[in-house]
Amino acid sequence: MIDYIVTTGANLYHDLHHSLDLPLSQGTPFVNDNELFEKDIIRIYDIFMEYEVLAATDNWLMRTFSRPEFQKRMGTRELHYLLGKFADEVEKERGTVGKSFIAEAYRYEVPIYTSSPGDSTLGLDIAALNLVGKSIYIDSSIDVNETAALILEAKQIGKSGVVVWGGGSPKNFILQPEPALQEVLGFDIKGHDYFVQVTDARPDTGGLSGATPNEAVSWAKIDPDTVNQSVVCYSDTTIVMPLLTAYLESCKIRRKPKRLYKKLPKLTDKLREKFLQQKDLILGKRSVADTIQFLKGSKG
Amino acid sequence: MIDYIVTTGANLYHDLHHSLDLPLSQGTPFVNDNELFEKDIIRIYDIFMEYEVLAATDNWLMRTFSRPEFQKRMGTRELHYLLGKFADEVEKERGTVGKSFIAEAYRYEVPIYTSSPGDSTLGLDIAALNLVGKSIYIDSSIDVNETAALILEAKQIGKSGVVVWGGGSPKNFILQPEPALQEVLGFDIKGHDYFVQVTDARPDTGGLSGATPNEAVSWAKIDPDTVNQSVVCYSDTTIVMPLLTAYLESCKIRRKPKRLYKKLPKLTDKLREKFLQQKDLILGKRSVADTIQFLKGSKG
Amino acid sequence: MIDYIVTTGANLYHDLHHSLDLPLSQGTPFVNDNELFEKDIIRIYDIFMEYEVLAATDNWLMRTFSRPEFQKRMGTRELHYLLGKFADEVEKERGTVGKSFIAEAYRYEVPIYTSSPGDSTLGLDIAALNLVGKSIYIDSSIDVNETAALILEAKQIGKSGVVVWGGGSPKNFILQPEPALQEVLGFDIKGHDYFVQVTDARPDTGGLSGATPNEAVSWAKIDPDTVNQSVVCYSDTTIVMPLLTAYLESCKIRRKPKRLYKKLPKLTDKLREKFLQQKDLILGKRSVADTIQFLKGSKG
Amino acid sequence: MIDYIVTTGANLYHDLHHSLDLPLSQGTPFVNDNELFEKDIIRIYDIFMEYEVLAATDNWLMRTFSRPEFQKRMGTRELHYLLGKFADEVEKERGTVGKSFIAEAYRYEVPIYTSSPGDSTLGLDIAALNLVGKSIYIDSSIDVNETAALILEAKQIGKSGVVVWGGGSPKNFILQPEPALQEVLGFDIKGHDYFVQVTDARPDTGGLSGATPNEAVSWAKIDPDTVNQSVVCYSDTTIVMPLLTAYLESCKIRRKPKRLYKKLPKLTDKLREKFLQQKDLILGKRSVADTIQFLKGSKG
Repeated sequence: MIDYIVTTGANLYHDLHHSLDLPLSQGTPFVNDNELFEKDIIRIYDIFMEYEVLAATDNWLMRTFSRPEFQKRMGTRELHYLLGKFADEVEKERGTVGKSFIAEAYRYEVPIYTSSPGDSTLGLDIAALNLVGKSIYIDSSIDVNETAALILEAKQIGKSGVVVWGGGSPKNFILQPEPALQEVLGFDIKGHDYFVQVTDARPDTGGLSGATPNEAVSWAKIDPDTVNQSVVCYSDTTIVMPLLTAYLESCKIRRKPKRLYKKLPKLTDKLREKFLQQKDLILGKRSVADTIQFLKGSKG
Repeated sequence: MIDYIVTTGANLYHDLHHSLDLPLSQGTPFVNDNELFEKDIIRIYDIFMEYEVLAATDNWLMRTFSRPEFQKRMGTRELHYLLGKFADEVEKERGTVGKSFIAEAYRYEVPIYTSSPGDSTLGLDIAALNLVGKSIYIDSSIDVNETAALILEAKQIGKSGVVVWGGGSPKNFILQPEPALQEVLGFDIKGHDYFVQVTDARPDTGGLSGATPNEAVSWAKIDPDTVNQSVVCYSDTTIVMPLLTAYLESCKIRRKPKRLYKKLPKLTDKLREKFLQQKDLILGKRSVADTIQFLKGSKG
Repeated sequence: MIDYIVTTGANLYHDLHHSLDLPLSQGTPFVNDNELFEKDIIRIYDIFMEYEVLAATDNWLMRTFSRPEFQKRMGTRELHYLLGKFADEVEKERGTVGKSFIAEAYRYEVPIYTSSPGDSTLGLDIAALNLVGKSIYIDSSIDVNETAALILEAKQIGKSGVVVWGGGSPKNFILQPEPALQEVLGFDIKGHDYFVQVTDARPDTGGLSGATPNEAVSWAKIDPDTVNQSVVCYSDTTIVMPLLTAYLESCKIRRKPKRLYKKLPKLTDKLREKFLQQKDLILGKRSVADTIQFLKGSKG
Repeated sequence: MIDYIVTTGANLYHDLHHSLDLPLSQGTPFVNDNELFEKDIIRIYDIFMEYEVLAATDNWLMRTFSRPEFQKRMGTRELHYLLGKFADEVEKERGTVGKSFIAEAYRYEVPIYTSSPGDSTLGLDIAALNLVGKSIYIDSSIDVNETAALILEAKQIGKSGVVVWGGGSPKNFILQPEPALQEVLGFDIKGHDYFVQVTDARPDTGGLSGATPNEAVSWAKIDPDTVNQSVVCYSDTTIVMPLLTAYLESCKIRRKPKRLYKKLPKLTDKLREKFLQQKDLILGKRSVADTIQFLKGSKG
């Protein structure tokens, strides 16, 4: 039921431990971390893993990223698809099929993006390979234009919506195609029709993570006519995600997978073409000349 | 007193409104956002700006990013330095010198990095220029290696520390040079000596934003011998930053600026050289062979 | 499955709207409260009621509290039991049996206490009746001694535990019988064997609402040998209570109701008797003489 | 500058350690509480005290509460004033004058109320004395009527306002005189003119602690005409209280103390008298008859 995903590199990196059949265990956060350090045990809140788990994952990633398929400039959709393909292979070998979402996304051709390609061990491994002369490069602009192309298409054939788990940079990334299309590229489209967020971030700190759907209306990220249908649930995602998934299961809704992965190059070409037809409107609702006029005006 | 900065593109983008002398105003978050949308007013919690402010900033950015200096592959240190240079120019013209931190950082040669170069209007503008054939292109691997080079140097000549305001992707990015150096590149260094964080994120959600300094010890990001000196202040940064700044002012401590911006290419060469001398240790404390052995072992 | 309850007066007061078949409705918190005020509509976050709902409840309460049964000095166990009895009557008349927990508690003889008898409209109504000469009068000391008597008995016949939903004054009240018995009354008992808390309060503010079970060990409120079995769930109780209730239902555990209401006078007499046998130990582990010695010593 | 205080018994109880010159020390919350328990050390987040500190305070309280002045039925204003008087004495003996707020409030005749008289060690000590036949009794209705009388007087001679630090039961207690006067006692007054709250409680959990000033308008607790001047600061009170106090100091505002303690019996008589003149209006804006009509109507 998922069309595309924006997540962090860390989620993808630690997902691969499952593909590689490496052991993680759940414990308690009330531990002595200096003792863990002595014993080469790594902790993520209440999840524990031996240092070997990271070393083995890095070793597999280094060998995988060194393959000829990766030696190019690409967006993260392609990077994660290729990783998913090799994760799928290793899962078949090791009997771990279905344990990772990166391989599952590969199998259903669901594009996965990350907003911060250098952040996480995936990014560290790629940078290390660059140091020794490998030519694997990530270009975030490809991702930016592809996600804008996706929303432009969605808006032309129907409605659009997002489900946000948590906040941070991925929240901004999944919402920014709306201003990209309207403000930067000058398309006359509306904000999202549906918006659901599960987060523990509070609005009153002023940050984007806790920003309300109403605030997003002022940015044209959400359609003012449908914002009343938005849902924000203030809770830990690990409580709500199983509940919502169980509910969707119980509804027995079946959707044909959209398999967007392969459609994206064509959609991006379409975006480029349409944009070039109107590039004198490059700054959205106002022309460049008007804006310069305004800039001058704001001084006088 | 600041050696280098990791921040979000949004902080840098909205900082530029001050350089350009564009008006922002403070109000209340308790407003009707559908009315704001009708009137082309944009809201960030309790800060308001006309749509023209964004349009004018984008117009200036589009023209600036189209200059020949930007048509290359680079890290965000260089991107933000060049932006700071042109912001410095516009500030001198418009009488806004000292209003933005991007121009101030340029003047003091303080490197500014972002972990998510495609995220924020800076990234949207760059991607739009790519659509029309410009060749400005950000490579996060350059940033990853430069920040690792910085920490390697710091550890060899003395102590290191970080001050974290908030959480999210910038928190991970500023802490990851430690595992990059130890786990991925195989250097034998210790974690940070000093760690200060001001955040409203709570540890119990399990996310990195609220992760404690102790958890960071298990990752070797912080030295277990000094973690007791770490400070975590659970508060809104807009309350604590002025307090801490006023305190530092009152201490009358003066430090000679380190002007790291220009030193980084050399430091990165040094990192590469040292890494190549030991690249058979590529996976940190264990050799590749050991790790493969482990991978096999974990199945048998 | 509930032995006794400590709650706020507000929970009991608004519970009575259900007994009286008065309409509440659920809406959105994003409303104009000045408009609500004009229209005599009262809001509790996203629950709305007409002013008449309060007026009608107060009217029923005033008439009920004026009955001869209430004209005495009593603890809140008796107050709430009598209220539950009249709520049970009105529910039978109006066809709302099972809609309130106060009447249900009456039917199962489950004692209900409140730590702040003057706080809430129940307290306001009682105080107003005092102004016109009625002699209804709540003595919290009765509650304090009864809840201590309950725990003393529990400890002598088996194990004890608490489930805390939220925090605040009721959390302190339900935990204080442990120090009352040990520190103030000098009994040699252990802390609770079981502790479960669902709260959104965070430990780092230092308040009791978010205080951890470990902190409670230092106060002897929880047994150090069993504190590792404690559960703290950081979530909104309205998410977790239905989940936990559904789980308990699905376990098909049946317990015979303890019907503690009527047993309490006898248990309290037993507490008094045992206490009088040892009142020279009035200050817990140390005798009065030792303590005076200490007081002197702390000056010299 | 403070007219009256509503607080918890725990704040008052631990305040007395300072009067008695008993040692508390500040440490870290990251400790092993089972070890503390073994060593008879008590922890409140990052504050530590020996068990003797509690024992000595209880011993002093038991002896003080046993004095003839306390053997009566009274409100907490009187209870805390008498305690403050004896604390003042002990402070003069021990050279700790100015260390506690309870003695300072006594000296300035500032009334101190608590909403939960049985909650806290003060309540435990009183209840223990009741077990051995002492006749010290707290009646919260006296407090409810006195605080209503205070607000009625304030509204007749000028404006009123509250400053709320934290939330919980004291927040409700300090705000409830408004509905007590309007809804229960039938006076035609307006809500508070000023409202300031410093809290870490969030509105979205639906509890009173985090409820907004706007929600309070619907309850007539705050005047709709002035609610826009309300201030809510989401922060730890231990950060904001010193800041605000320093600011007020720097303003060099001096107010003559109102010394309300002794005026309260007369104000309460005035409230009773005015209420009796209109007691047929007992349920606020509507008469009893109207309300009964409504109750019947709501069924038909």
